[in-house]
Amino acid sequence: MRRFPEPIQNAAAALARLPGVGPKTALRYVFYLLKQPKADIESVARALVALGERIQTCSRCYTYTAGGGVCEICTDARRDASLLCVVEESRDIATMESTDAYKGLYHVLGGTLNPIEGVTPDALRVRELVERVRADETIREIILAFSPNVQGETTILYLAKQLAPFGRAVTRLARGLPIGASIEYADEVTLGDALKGRRTM
Amino acid sequence: MRRFPEPIQNAAAALARLPGVGPKTALRYVFYLLKQPKADIESVARALVALGERIQTCSRCYTYTAGGGVCEICTDARRDASLLCVVEESRDIATMESTDAYKGLYHVLGGTLNPIEGVTPDALRVRELVERVRADETIREIILAFSPNVQGETTILYLAKQLAPFGRAVTRLARGLPIGASIEYADEVTLGDALKGRRTM
Repeated sequence: MRRFPEPIQNAAAALARLPGVGPKTALRYVFYLLKQPKADIESVARALVALGERIQTCSRCYTYTAGGGVCEICTDARRDASLLCVVEESRDIATMESTDAYKGLYHVLGGTLNPIEGVTPDALRVRELVERVRADETIREIILAFSPNVQGETTILYLAKQLAPFGRAVTRLARGLPIGASIEYADEVTLGDALKGRRTM
Repeated sequence: MRRFPEPIQNAAAALARLPGVGPKTALRYVFYLLKQPKADIESVARALVALGERIQTCSRCYTYTAGGGVCEICTDARRDASLLCVVEESRDIATMESTDAYKGLYHVLGGTLNPIEGVTPDALRVRELVERVRADETIREIILAFSPNVQGETTILYLAKQLAPFGRAVTRLARGLPIGASIEYADEVTLGDALKGRRTM
């Protein structure tokens, strides 16, 4: 196949590193960008540079923050410091916040345990979590908010064991039928969970 | 939904303008980039800046070129100047070249006719094509290499009419069964085309 001019090749190679983007999709992005005004391409590039330069991790909960130092949630005095929610990634905080059902603090673990892929406790912020719980007596409850899949369950079990010695409540998110679901098509594990977790009206 | 820090929002908004990329995918790209070393994010940004700054269109065939002025194919004396292949976009040249079956020159039309979406002949490089054919007596044959869909067919018919007065051969790509196809599953139009275009062995 004939090679495109070097700047096109380079841009396509750079974009092909994004998750789920192959060489064909990357080329499609490049040809789309070439049809835009030059100022627009530059604004995309500037936004990426700013991303690399301005985003840091909060020194307390490890979420991404633009300020440097401690993030908005950690410095917000109105949040309930007795609750600590452990999430996989920064983006999960946005999802939790969108429920408006949680007013405590967060800890970003940085992934879930996956020994086969080399993600051991050392690769995650497990030590930081344990230290934080040990040092901060105000934390009453630690909510392990991981997805109910193999890696998530493994991580929940591991963390529950690590946190047990401190005598705080360690909880996990409820499993059951999602809203709008049909009992007819629910899998047996979910339906079993929903039965076990049934509530008085 | 809670807003992410501004640099994350901006980068996601910039990437969400790419074709087929929605806000969720854009955020996924951003969180992926944030996990990469800062130098990697900058190299992506640099590649995009170079794209905007270094890529220009060839002043003769309107393909994208890094040099400025006239492109490599137009300046290549070994190419057959009596053949002119009209394609929709720059990227189609790469596909044509990969066949190794064509050694002539190109003209990039910049799209296909689509009056409903406002793509009239004035929005394409039709005038430039007609002028080039009129001015260049060496062009013997003009190959209209468009996809056999509604827009492509419309464009082929329109261009054939515009080029008729100059008395050169105006051809189109053969339609028929693609290699590996099964007659059992071929649609009747393709099979009809294959029959009409049958060749002596």
